[in-house]
Amino acid sequence: MAQKEFSIVGKKTPRIDAFERVTGQAQYTGDIQLPGMLYARVLRSPVPHAKIAGIDTSKAEKLPGVKAVIHHGNTQIPWSSGGLTHRRFIFNNPVRYVGEAVAAVAATNRHIAEEALGLIEVKYEAIPHVLDAKEALKPDAPKITPNGNLSVGKGAFSAPIQESWGDLEKGFKEADRTFEDTYISKHVNNAQLERRVSVAKWDGGKLTVFASTQGVSNARTDIAKDFGLPLSKVRIVCKYMGGGFGNKNQAQDYDYMTAALAKATAQPVKLEFTREDDYIGMHGRWASEQHYKIGVKNDGTITAVQLDAITNMGAYRKQSGNLSGTDFYQIPNFKKVVLPVHTNTVVAANYRAPAYPQSVFGFASFLDQIAYELGINPLDMFTRNRAQMYKSKIPFTSNYLEQCISEGSKRIGWSEKWHKPGAAAGTVKHGIGMAVGGYPFRPGLGAATIRVNPDGTAHVLVGVTDIGTGAKSTMAIIASEALGIPLNQIQLTNGDTDATPYSVGESGSRTTSFTGPAVVAAAEDVRKQIFALAVKQFKVKPEELDLRDGQVFAKSDPSKKVGLGAIVKGTGDLIGRATTNPSFPKDVEGKSFAAHFAEVEVDTSTGHVKITRYVAAHDSGTILNRLTAESQIKGGIVQGIGMALTEELLIDPVTATPINPSYRDAKVLTHLEVPDVEVIFIENYDPYGVFGGKVVGEPPITPAVATVANAIFNATAKRVKVLPITPDKILQAVRV
Amino acid sequence: MAQKEFSIVGKKTPRIDAFERVTGQAQYTGDIQLPGMLYARVLRSPVPHAKIAGIDTSKAEKLPGVKAVIHHGNTQIPWSSGGLTHRRFIFNNPVRYVGEAVAAVAATNRHIAEEALGLIEVKYEAIPHVLDAKEALKPDAPKITPNGNLSVGKGAFSAPIQESWGDLEKGFKEADRTFEDTYISKHVNNAQLERRVSVAKWDGGKLTVFASTQGVSNARTDIAKDFGLPLSKVRIVCKYMGGGFGNKNQAQDYDYMTAALAKATAQPVKLEFTREDDYIGMHGRWASEQHYKIGVKNDGTITAVQLDAITNMGAYRKQSGNLSGTDFYQIPNFKKVVLPVHTNTVVAANYRAPAYPQSVFGFASFLDQIAYELGINPLDMFTRNRAQMYKSKIPFTSNYLEQCISEGSKRIGWSEKWHKPGAAAGTVKHGIGMAVGGYPFRPGLGAATIRVNPDGTAHVLVGVTDIGTGAKSTMAIIASEALGIPLNQIQLTNGDTDATPYSVGESGSRTTSFTGPAVVAAAEDVRKQIFALAVKQFKVKPEELDLRDGQVFAKSDPSKKVGLGAIVKGTGDLIGRATTNPSFPKDVEGKSFAAHFAEVEVDTSTGHVKITRYVAAHDSGTILNRLTAESQIKGGIVQGIGMALTEELLIDPVTATPINPSYRDAKVLTHLEVPDVEVIFIENYDPYGVFGGKVVGEPPITPAVATVANAIFNATAKRVKVLPITPDKILQAVRV
Repeated sequence: MAQKEFSIVGKKTPRIDAFERVTGQAQYTGDIQLPGMLYARVLRSPVPHAKIAGIDTSKAEKLPGVKAVIHHGNTQIPWSSGGLTHRRFIFNNPVRYVGEAVAAVAATNRHIAEEALGLIEVKYEAIPHVLDAKEALKPDAPKITPNGNLSVGKGAFSAPIQESWGDLEKGFKEADRTFEDTYISKHVNNAQLERRVSVAKWDGGKLTVFASTQGVSNARTDIAKDFGLPLSKVRIVCKYMGGGFGNKNQAQDYDYMTAALAKATAQPVKLEFTREDDYIGMHGRWASEQHYKIGVKNDGTITAVQLDAITNMGAYRKQSGNLSGTDFYQIPNFKKVVLPVHTNTVVAANYRAPAYPQSVFGFASFLDQIAYELGINPLDMFTRNRAQMYKSKIPFTSNYLEQCISEGSKRIGWSEKWHKPGAAAGTVKHGIGMAVGGYPFRPGLGAATIRVNPDGTAHVLVGVTDIGTGAKSTMAIIASEALGIPLNQIQLTNGDTDATPYSVGESGSRTTSFTGPAVVAAAEDVRKQIFALAVKQFKVKPEELDLRDGQVFAKSDPSKKVGLGAIVKGTGDLIGRATTNPSFPKDVEGKSFAAHFAEVEVDTSTGHVKITRYVAAHDSGTILNRLTAESQIKGGIVQGIGMALTEELLIDPVTATPINPSYRDAKVLTHLEVPDVEVIFIENYDPYGVFGGKVVGEPPITPAVATVANAIFNATAKRVKVLPITPDKILQAVRV
Repeated sequence: MAQKEFSIVGKKTPRIDAFERVTGQAQYTGDIQLPGMLYARVLRSPVPHAKIAGIDTSKAEKLPGVKAVIHHGNTQIPWSSGGLTHRRFIFNNPVRYVGEAVAAVAATNRHIAEEALGLIEVKYEAIPHVLDAKEALKPDAPKITPNGNLSVGKGAFSAPIQESWGDLEKGFKEADRTFEDTYISKHVNNAQLERRVSVAKWDGGKLTVFASTQGVSNARTDIAKDFGLPLSKVRIVCKYMGGGFGNKNQAQDYDYMTAALAKATAQPVKLEFTREDDYIGMHGRWASEQHYKIGVKNDGTITAVQLDAITNMGAYRKQSGNLSGTDFYQIPNFKKVVLPVHTNTVVAANYRAPAYPQSVFGFASFLDQIAYELGINPLDMFTRNRAQMYKSKIPFTSNYLEQCISEGSKRIGWSEKWHKPGAAAGTVKHGIGMAVGGYPFRPGLGAATIRVNPDGTAHVLVGVTDIGTGAKSTMAIIASEALGIPLNQIQLTNGDTDATPYSVGESGSRTTSFTGPAVVAAAEDVRKQIFALAVKQFKVKPEELDLRDGQVFAKSDPSKKVGLGAIVKGTGDLIGRATTNPSFPKDVEGKSFAAHFAEVEVDTSTGHVKITRYVAAHDSGTILNRLTAESQIKGGIVQGIGMALTEELLIDPVTATPINPSYRDAKVLTHLEVPDVEVIFIENYDPYGVFGGKVVGEPPITPAVATVANAIFNATAKRVKVLPITPDKILQAVRV
């Protein structure tokens, strides 16, 4: 569909809060200081599985400056969203992994709090533990939950996770060839820049939490539920936040601990995690072992796919544990069984496109391999098998995956540069690879309020926290476009449940598609009020008026304009509001698509991989802000490259202790280690998106891991099937 | 009209923020600390009228810790609302009164800022000055404004202030007797508990001022105008404030200075006035000299009133300077000429019921005197001449002044206790006195947003700052009643122009009648949305549903109730909004009325006055919250008693310097010096009020001064015509 004409949508618009962010004036949660505020620290279990036979906090409590010590013995607050399949408290007995919170201390400064941790005496009675997900499924494995180690939940969290369509047997019969193989991904931490931090205070019966959360509304819901408070008695504030990538969804245990300590001490309390706390005390992406059986025709056409997988969820279940990397292909006959499993390790849950990059890695690597086996150019393989229908049967609201593949391959020069795997000369070998990905696009519940000031400027109130995506700017852009008021005349108030209306948690790439329609509807609501006033000046019916660029005019005579300020003067405020909950018709589904292409140089003498070029072509419908959208694409790719090449949280098999919980050791890429990314937007107006936009946040990470892996294969003709593809694995592969 | 049945309106409801206030958790402007915040101090003129020939700030600027010094030479910011008749800046040259701001300093702490003031060298070139208002009107008086000293403004601020109706000459002809006399009131400071304080910061082009203001919306309007900013770039926050009584309306020069210093230093700045700053740097009630000529029949019926008066507005005109004490009487023929005059003294402007208590003192004292002269009981005199029509011709929306007089006089036992003036035996003489008063009631522009949370609790967003009146609680009560949701399930967000919609400045007793209707309308807006959802459960039309006490039910079957939470579950938020601007029909006017009664003991040997009993009967329509309404009545009366007996800002006639700018010296009453007040509400449902309510805030101060004065006369038979009625004046009177 052709693009519509917009005033501001689609431009490269700097963030509306750029000044505050770059000058350090933006107040992040860690910057918040309250009078009389205490500082907290968390004591974590050094053992992977143990009954706590006793806690002696007397020495810690006697330390001058210590105001409270809380633990399972005196503070049993459920953490519902932290334990979706077995009951979890903020402190648990037994403890189930190294790093699980055992106690928290509030003191007059953080040094005293830290010193106090060392004075707490805990008597652990060891219980046998299991670290490996396959081992955990054996009948004699130590039981981590009362129901055993297959994480059997309810509804969306029931296990095994199963999905199938078509006739698998028939599909394999139709295949000319059938391939089977196993791909493995590891636990990687979200590693967002801002460590977890929370400041809580109680005013009588009302709890305020300055959180670092991806969603103030669902943080409020969680806290209200678990603290037994009505929603009106909980206020969550998050004006600026420094990333989460899915592990700051709603409220987390540190918010609860801070609130509990604030209650115990009757003082405000701040708890800021160390980077180590952040790596081991929260969650990363679930590791997986993916066994595929794929039937294909000789021309590469897939006839059947069977996936049997295990995902390692750690000691508690917080999210699905699903694997969805097959979503971007047209698969006529399909069956998937995924077993989310508990082990005595750090918890795994949401990380940007939770179920995708690890399984796109598996499936797209394997397809690339099959293409190799069949003697087919991967470009043809991916093009031929690209998703054309949702679950191979339901049409998408829009689908430009084919154009992503064709435009991206053109940009990188695939036809000139591709060569047979391992065919490049020299020790440092050139390779080129590709993969496809994307992420579901769906609409949902949103709310917004817009106030038009009596000088014609406007305030937009939305609950979004802006986790780094530029959501504040996007909402202001949507408001500007929908209102017809220039962006620089719009202020935005966000992220405060006492001030701003409901917003979906900023996860699942939902902010624009959930809150955006509410902003548009609130704008319509206030425009009606403006036009009702303007009829005095224009002597036409309200519906015959329009407002653009801050000027009201009759559609029949756009030359005669009246400034909005002159219309609304003396009104105090006009207020528009909307709660919207759009949905698709039953017979369509939404998805953003992407095709990525990378060139690498693999030094076969050192195993070192250098990515020399990266092209990302994305179908996200209309791009509302090209500047922040490009940043999203680049950021997702950097994370994917890290996951492909270096990142892994290692657990010592003897002590069960995470041994590299830091940026440097885990290991997160720096700017120097990643390529510049060329971003191509295949822009089309999606009929169900806000101004035609679909989703941007999660798609870019999904094909990045596989893209890099396939480029390495093209260079080396050796397939590394276990992430990350570190130099040692490459050397081992090329030396075979 | 009979009272309606209410759920919460009319009860004694503790303030919704009582906990925060009494525990010290409420964050007033003075409590605000921002990182890197500087502290400011103001240098004030020691001379009453002078050209500033030079300012040398070099020594001050060299003092370590001093970050900026601003003055008229480098910072010319207009202060529009501070100079309504001649152009005023935050720093002016010439300076026009002792106490006028000359410079302001920002430094790293307040001690350094204060030290720096002493290092600023100002060269003053004296200009002749005038302190007395009558002297100022003489042709050869020093000119304070280019137009001379009669404060000639425009529109509402034009002078002379003139009003007349009927036929004055005819009225005096119809009189059996005519009396003439002069009454004098002095400048008294508003003396609110919280001194002026402001914290300002700039984030790029956006200015945030944490103000101590009676109105965040009009503070924003003022600041935006004078700083040349769009409204969207100015944020005013005032969540709690500690009184203003009219001299913290909108924005004041300290807000401007703080903003200017924050801009100059690129750091947040706090400016907190000392109590002396507060007395001399802002404004108090205008002093007046009131000359009355009153014609009466022998039965006491007024036939004509002529008032010629001068009001002393100080060096700048900020408000009307009118005198309206005759408003509470039926006067068939009337003429008033008031001359607001400039002098080289502290500015006079709004103080609780600005034009009233000083002129109610004058007129009600004189009526009491005339009753004495005619041999009429004052109760008969006030009853006979009470206002029955607005300006003696337009009906009131409701008027229960007669019942105030009859119920109040009954309660104090007037008929038993009244005696002829001076007739009580002994040195310590009993006296009883009365007067009537009130304040205009009118509706106007308001706005509100109400969010209903998905558990059925609610948030009300209103711009009110709650200057001590309990406005936050009143708005929550109105919302509770209008929504049908219990008060304890309602949270209120107030006083932040980025979060809350327009609210009228909390002056002129307007909050309930301006913002209240918007709260009701916003509640109606959200109720409609609730009922639209509830039709699923009830299978009736939305308009057949009702919501009370948090339960939805069909009006036809109130026994079958569904909790609101069950109706709105999953909605995120429902948002109600309203901007309302109700007005009276042209043929009615609104007013709250009051009749006050006091008994005193006057020690004729010392001149000491003890008020032994005080009864206040008020017609304010429905009382929305008896607890805060009673507090309002009591507070107003305490201020009136202070004005009657002790308060006066004295200006040294030689140096023109205020010599007693402090609570102790000026002199504000303490709890020990004031009686308990018995409050009677003559409750009636005013057809134009929110739930039948009129106004409460300003009425109680209006008759209090005269009531005390008349009781002293009844004790002594001597009339003191110059406020305050201090012991020395009483002794002088009784010894004559």
